[in-house]
Amino acid sequence: MTESSSLSDRLIAGDRRALAKAITLVESTRPDHRAAAQALITEVMPKTGGAIRLGFSGPPGVGKSSFIESFGVYLTDLGLKVAVLAIDPSSVRSGGSILGDKTRMEELSRRDKAFIRPSPSGGTLGGVARRTREAMLLCEAAGYDVVIVETVGVGQSEIAVADMVDMFILLVSPGGGDELQGIKRGIMELADLVVVNKSDGDLEQAARRAQSEYRGALHIMRPKSPNWTPRVLRASALKRTGLDAVWQQIRKHREALSESGELAATRAEQARAWMWSEIQDQLLDRVRAANPDAVHEYERAVVEGRLPPGAAAEAVLALFLERGDSGEKPPLQP
Amino acid sequence: MTESSSLSDRLIAGDRRALAKAITLVESTRPDHRAAAQALITEVMPKTGGAIRLGFSGPPGVGKSSFIESFGVYLTDLGLKVAVLAIDPSSVRSGGSILGDKTRMEELSRRDKAFIRPSPSGGTLGGVARRTREAMLLCEAAGYDVVIVETVGVGQSEIAVADMVDMFILLVSPGGGDELQGIKRGIMELADLVVVNKSDGDLEQAARRAQSEYRGALHIMRPKSPNWTPRVLRASALKRTGLDAVWQQIRKHREALSESGELAATRAEQARAWMWSEIQDQLLDRVRAANPDAVHEYERAVVEGRLPPGAAAEAVLALFLERGDSGEKPPLQP
Repeated sequence: MTESSSLSDRLIAGDRRALAKAITLVESTRPDHRAAAQALITEVMPKTGGAIRLGFSGPPGVGKSSFIESFGVYLTDLGLKVAVLAIDPSSVRSGGSILGDKTRMEELSRRDKAFIRPSPSGGTLGGVARRTREAMLLCEAAGYDVVIVETVGVGQSEIAVADMVDMFILLVSPGGGDELQGIKRGIMELADLVVVNKSDGDLEQAARRAQSEYRGALHIMRPKSPNWTPRVLRASALKRTGLDAVWQQIRKHREALSESGELAATRAEQARAWMWSEIQDQLLDRVRAANPDAVHEYERAVVEGRLPPGAAAEAVLALFLERGDSGEKPPLQP
Repeated sequence: MTESSSLSDRLIAGDRRALAKAITLVESTRPDHRAAAQALITEVMPKTGGAIRLGFSGPPGVGKSSFIESFGVYLTDLGLKVAVLAIDPSSVRSGGSILGDKTRMEELSRRDKAFIRPSPSGGTLGGVARRTREAMLLCEAAGYDVVIVETVGVGQSEIAVADMVDMFILLVSPGGGDELQGIKRGIMELADLVVVNKSDGDLEQAARRAQSEYRGALHIMRPKSPNWTPRVLRASALKRTGLDAVWQQIRKHREALSESGELAATRAEQARAWMWSEIQDQLLDRVRAANPDAVHEYERAVVEGRLPPGAAAEAVLALFLERGDSGEKPPLQP
């Protein structure tokens, strides 16, 4: 406990090495590490919640990393402490963070007020999301003013990110039109702000067209919040233009949601849902682990239409709850 | 077992009273009824899967019931057996089905080839969905050619329905424009077919405008399936026009998804997901039931930001798995 206490003291003091070490602890799957991590997070809990939590997503090739780097540099120039966390269920541990960081967002990573952490190594989206959420709390305890969670946009990661941040920002490129269809289903509707990146030089006209197309697309969608209407802005990570307008929108969004009480309500609901999704994920892992072969066999029988899902579920539950000999287990062959 | 055997025989023979009784068994929450229901479904499993499974949804006031009645009558006139199941987590048991049926879809309910069943009485969406899925299997075993699942469009029920059918049909009214925003987030994207109802008399022009607006809206969405492009049709439940075109689209959709193998793959994945969602729902119910007060207290601590969701999840799991005295339970007060 003293170990984690001293660690928490250094963390709260803003020691970046302590923060990195704490996140590594959070990312560990060793039971004793898990316990220590939970103790640490519980200890620093009163220091959390102070940051603006931003999620950034967008299709490949939109220049997400360069935009986040430019925006992060812009924020640090304003004197703000910025943490960037990536979430990528498909990622492979890049052997310690330092090198992994330097390769991307090189300028931002040199800033004292910036902390960049690559995605925890692969696993289920639930696992990666859990570790990212906990890393976000640690960054807040370490005094970061803005925490940016970047999704690589694999599978359902955008939804996981939208569920852990205050504001979800969708980055798009001047492609517009056809590219609209490249944006994964339902992602447009998660956006509290859409930013058309690469709005510079020859692409500026295309960016203006894309901007109006995205405005049209947003128009036909029911607003996500009664207190906020998503805007579509143009910016250039390369020329570092439009970043101030993006920051203005973020601050207006924060103001609108704080005054209406929506921010507090949303964070409370996010926390509640997070608790239950963790209980659920861990229970289902245990169900699989308890009887891997039987579970697999029942799953196959269901997929092949030999057993009704309901009956298979009852049987798997009976096995897990050690009532497997209750005779209620249905036959695998009809 | 003989009870359920004879019941299954009569069910497979197409006896409507047997079907109604079987569905009532499936809707019961009594453990012995649940076991009998699972045995029954397991028994008739080989006779299931033969129907075209359709989901119908749409905003209030679109005339869903009257459209489904007109369409159902159209199908029975083609000599097809049609079952209509409703899904409404907020519904209250309407005292046996007969009266409940007659009040709505009166003409269809008089047809020998039609079977109409109101939504199971309230409960969680998961519970209502499970009972509806099982009722669908029973209807298939009873030889129904088309099973229509109607959602009242409360909460997330559209997604639950889309996850249990082969084709999801969105009904809209000539309102168009503003009404578009009335359609719940993400629902447009679930649609395999959009039908503008009430395209008759004075509303026909408005219906044409709505048709083109919905076409525009669908255009900017990535298609749900690589094998199918959703169309927007106009119809009138009142004048019973456009129903043949709707049926043509349904048959084309069926053909496209069968030939591509997508139908079989989708149904297999639906069954697998269904099995796991049942395991999950039942486990979470047990977690809550095992220690209701403690779970509620941990939930409140999380919602009020006094305890990290991860730590609360660990504590609730420890309680459920009877390791509550392991001393790892974090304090409720920081």
